[in-house]
Amino acid sequence: MNSIPAATLRRLAIAARAPSLNATQLIQLAATDPGLASLGGRDRRAFAQLGLTTHCADWLATPDDSLVDSDLRWLESSGVILLPAMSPDYPGLLRESPDAPAVLYVRGDLRVLAEPQVAMVGSRNPTAGGRATARDFAAFFARAGLTVTSGLALGIDAACHEGALDAGGPTVAVLGCGLDQIYPRNHEKLAERVAAQGALISEFPPRTEPMPACFPQRNRIIAGLSHGTLVIEAAEKSGSLITARLAGVAGRDVFAIPDSIHNPLARGCHQLIRQGAKLIERPEDVLCELKISLSAQLVAGPSPGLAVPGSGAALLDKEYKILLDALAFEPASVDNLIERTGMNSESIASMLLILELDGHVAPHPGGRYSRMAGQ
Amino acid sequence: MNSIPAATLRRLAIAARAPSLNATQLIQLAATDPGLASLGGRDRRAFAQLGLTTHCADWLATPDDSLVDSDLRWLESSGVILLPAMSPDYPGLLRESPDAPAVLYVRGDLRVLAEPQVAMVGSRNPTAGGRATARDFAAFFARAGLTVTSGLALGIDAACHEGALDAGGPTVAVLGCGLDQIYPRNHEKLAERVAAQGALISEFPPRTEPMPACFPQRNRIIAGLSHGTLVIEAAEKSGSLITARLAGVAGRDVFAIPDSIHNPLARGCHQLIRQGAKLIERPEDVLCELKISLSAQLVAGPSPGLAVPGSGAALLDKEYKILLDALAFEPASVDNLIERTGMNSESIASMLLILELDGHVAPHPGGRYSRMAGQ
Repeated sequence: MNSIPAATLRRLAIAARAPSLNATQLIQLAATDPGLASLGGRDRRAFAQLGLTTHCADWLATPDDSLVDSDLRWLESSGVILLPAMSPDYPGLLRESPDAPAVLYVRGDLRVLAEPQVAMVGSRNPTAGGRATARDFAAFFARAGLTVTSGLALGIDAACHEGALDAGGPTVAVLGCGLDQIYPRNHEKLAERVAAQGALISEFPPRTEPMPACFPQRNRIIAGLSHGTLVIEAAEKSGSLITARLAGVAGRDVFAIPDSIHNPLARGCHQLIRQGAKLIERPEDVLCELKISLSAQLVAGPSPGLAVPGSGAALLDKEYKILLDALAFEPASVDNLIERTGMNSESIASMLLILELDGHVAPHPGGRYSRMAGQ
Repeated sequence: MNSIPAATLRRLAIAARAPSLNATQLIQLAATDPGLASLGGRDRRAFAQLGLTTHCADWLATPDDSLVDSDLRWLESSGVILLPAMSPDYPGLLRESPDAPAVLYVRGDLRVLAEPQVAMVGSRNPTAGGRATARDFAAFFARAGLTVTSGLALGIDAACHEGALDAGGPTVAVLGCGLDQIYPRNHEKLAERVAAQGALISEFPPRTEPMPACFPQRNRIIAGLSHGTLVIEAAEKSGSLITARLAGVAGRDVFAIPDSIHNPLARGCHQLIRQGAKLIERPEDVLCELKISLSAQLVAGPSPGLAVPGSGAALLDKEYKILLDALAFEPASVDNLIERTGMNSESIASMLLILELDGHVAPHPGGRYSRMAGQ
């Protein structure tokens, strides 16, 4: 963040606190006012075409300077990064999802947010079996190169983060409060591990307490970040079903694990399956379904209804094409591909996984890859 | 059977043994030769338009008289009834199903075959939980007035028959061998209970041993008799999945009960759910789905593609209309309805259940019913 001029950072801090400002509005504002000089400028005319609430326009024109100063001091001391929707680092899938946050607060590694993610959610009071399934599936996804995204809650969420971390994979935790506090309190150590090995993110400014109303809002970010959402154990009318519904609304896959008809925590999953969620028995089933989705995305490009200028999916799509073009039918190593494309090794490794799942490339001994015939 | 002339009975016994003769072919033959006098008549010209195999036509023209005599002696001594496809007692749903048997051997109460049936099938080696679920669901269906149809096999089949019988309901067992033998042997007592309280049926003539090839054939009768097929616990590639597939092919509902992903006997059910079977948590879910199907059938009449002249479903439809016409908006007792329609109390009770599920009639205290407004 040191490379960002102080004036720009201040404007991002103003945008981050603007009530109900969403990604689309901030991107539109940045298109006409690239330096966001209008923020804090006391003139509301720049905001006229954005469809903002009065409350939001008031804040953007005349923010509370002492509050913004305090946020800036916290950002500096905590190392938390502000990630606005127009940044190339802002996750593309989230940007395409309905009512995406204008600015994210991020603690950890920004690059993790660009990796393909699968959301895993479920009950705060799972059965021992549900908890074990969560850990096992998360570990499998981590080993397969997928980032596990969840909500740092008790129960299934924690088991998913732990499963991914223990398998050496990154994981993303989306909080329903400011990043200056951790909820629940006894997940502070887990939050440290997530920040060290992945990222903690929130749309809520510092000093936002965890409130019931924050959690459904938080859930839309979990769903929006992910190619699909897997529900493990969920009661009827539970928060996990909201996340699943939001994933469906955003056009993402919804997955659910069945269980005994005598387990009340299977009810929510069974309800989702009846409504069209994919029934999942093994973590491979999720990869197989994501392969289909990713393959469709790769072939068709992002859906026109969802795409926004400079969207991450379009970017992803372009990068995949560059990588495919750099691959020949003679096997090449990741080092060869770094040389040919100028991309970094993490991006290449992650894209190769997707391309392999997708049947576009074939793996060879010694970590080399070749393009498949007909691709 | 005493009322059937000996010559007719002999011709039915010939038809019952005709290899690969199906219901449609026998109905077509009866349409041009109502007394079936051509059977055993040594003249094959009557069979020319039926598309029979040479083997079948040979048998119909020149059957083995001593074998037929032996069958007739067994029919007389055992009390087993021959039920040809053109009989009004032949189950209408079965008649509409693909490749229905030309003649059924029936031991027990013919009227049970006209009742609405739900098929229940599953593993021969179920878990204790699966067995309990089978019993509980079957007992619920029996109390709700649905006849439970299964295959008298070990495991789930037996638990379903027992659940229905213990709840005082009738049940239908379809055998994969002749009715002169019971397979498995240790189900002889269960078979006696089924025959006394419902019906044992088979398309196989006496002295047909249980052979592996007979069971998929038997399964199509289970599926064909029933409005829907519920699979309880089934391994991948098991016979229960064949029954479910045949139910789907016959245009009937397929239901499956989910279970833990760690139960190998849940695999078959999960596979069915993925392929579109309805996920069932409670027996009420099955009634609710059947209500939709039966309601559509009542409103639309039988599908033109499936209907055959004098089909059971058309008959059913007509009887329902008579019963509805006999009902007023003033509550009436079943006795009133017997007086008004001339139907028997069992038929009326069974039709009232369907009409109630269907929202056409409302129950009142004292076992009385009224027509719903708008019906």
